[in-house]
Amino acid sequence: MTAPRRPFTLAVWQQPGLCGQPDAMIDRLAALLDSGVLGGVDLLLLPELWTSGYFDTPAVTAASEPADGPWQARMATLARRHGLALAYGYPELAPDQVRYNSVRLIDAEGETLLAYRKVNLWGDYERALFAAGDTASAIAHLHGWRIGFSICYDTEYPETLRDLALRGADLVLAPTAVGAEFPLIAEAVIRVRALENGLWLAFANRSGEEYGYRFDGQSAIVGPDGLVRARAADDEGLLITTLDPGAIAAARAATPYLHDMRWAAPEL
Amino acid sequence: MTAPRRPFTLAVWQQPGLCGQPDAMIDRLAALLDSGVLGGVDLLLLPELWTSGYFDTPAVTAASEPADGPWQARMATLARRHGLALAYGYPELAPDQVRYNSVRLIDAEGETLLAYRKVNLWGDYERALFAAGDTASAIAHLHGWRIGFSICYDTEYPETLRDLALRGADLVLAPTAVGAEFPLIAEAVIRVRALENGLWLAFANRSGEEYGYRFDGQSAIVGPDGLVRARAADDEGLLITTLDPGAIAAARAATPYLHDMRWAAPEL
Repeated sequence: MTAPRRPFTLAVWQQPGLCGQPDAMIDRLAALLDSGVLGGVDLLLLPELWTSGYFDTPAVTAASEPADGPWQARMATLARRHGLALAYGYPELAPDQVRYNSVRLIDAEGETLLAYRKVNLWGDYERALFAAGDTASAIAHLHGWRIGFSICYDTEYPETLRDLALRGADLVLAPTAVGAEFPLIAEAVIRVRALENGLWLAFANRSGEEYGYRFDGQSAIVGPDGLVRARAADDEGLLITTLDPGAIAAARAATPYLHDMRWAAPEL
Repeated sequence: MTAPRRPFTLAVWQQPGLCGQPDAMIDRLAALLDSGVLGGVDLLLLPELWTSGYFDTPAVTAASEPADGPWQARMATLARRHGLALAYGYPELAPDQVRYNSVRLIDAEGETLLAYRKVNLWGDYERALFAAGDTASAIAHLHGWRIGFSICYDTEYPETLRDLALRGADLVLAPTAVGAEFPLIAEAVIRVRALENGLWLAFANRSGEEYGYRFDGQSAIVGPDGLVRARAADDEGLLITTLDPGAIAAARAATPYLHDMRWAAPEL
């Protein structure tokens, strides 16, 4: 038996990053948490490669850490101290020294609930820096919600969220680093992914510039009907939305895509 | 070997329909063709159940015909006389008296190039009236273009266009009858389907009202980059666009979804 979903307050924090300064990023987060603005929030989602920065090979290399590394420990301490779950992207250095573009969900007790390595790497830059994960995100259970991960390019593949939905996900966390040259991702793709699977989608994109490359921002929380519940602009933004547990059933009654499905789940 | 694509001029005609009056619909089309406004058009796409009307069981029943029926013959004559291909939806009565929600592409010689029966029927109304097709659209070749069909609810499933794209389609014809209660289909879904598969999508929706139900209109021709090249409003509209054969390669270089795919094609 699955616990019933309860109303769940989700936050997404989008802000221009600092390349190669994970401690400074975590200090910023600590200050945000100390300010009390996240009181009542159950889970805060941050973008892809949040600790390290994105377009900076030395910074990503220097900020890589194992799954139980020192920055990970600081994040767990913050989660425990402030009593909320934290999800964020970071460069993972596996025990065999292979590097992954990874994400992690830490619960309010500081325990890792869910870890995932990006399956669909984007372009030559990411492929030179990371190995691709070969396993879809597992589904974590939190306050009765079933939560899965999809990182940036993963989300552009309908197969990713379809697979998560058919395994029961009702909330997908999508830490992202997509540039302003691809505005349709934030504007349309994320809405369609939520709609076609009848689930909540939290999209935390990078913003600001790195070495002349401008990230799109436009982070959003999208309901299972494809309607945007909260949306950031292109700089800094904090989105806080309480997810209505009944919205999924309503959306799936209006557009019963999963019920009417004639295809099997996609397999990696 | 496949013939190279050449520039291809596509038209979509959206207009409020007449329930149960296939001859009157074809008369209207004949008048449009006689007007000369479609000179230079290679293919004209019309909406779902274009001959019969949609939300009217007696009308759909009365306008049902076999694949070589009398209205089909009139359409073939028009195609031949005006030297363009015609694609349109109609209720098909198979030799075993089973009814399908079908579409047909007739070439400029009046020959049927492609026939397809809707796989994903929408709701109790369609399921009471039609049997579901059990075969994905084949790919027809026309002027070097590889063309497939997807009808209305089919298009809302990413599996449909993904399968067509992986089988080589570069243009999908999507005759549709979606209501104004679902504005995200025209606004976002069709753009994402074109983008995520790097192909052209022609979306011919019904417009006007039938028995108080308002169709959404908003027919569109969408490029392989997800950008709308032509868009109708909610009443009558004729869209004519010449498809640039190079746009597919450009889109697939910018967002190489098919090249980077890690999943197999979906199978019905």
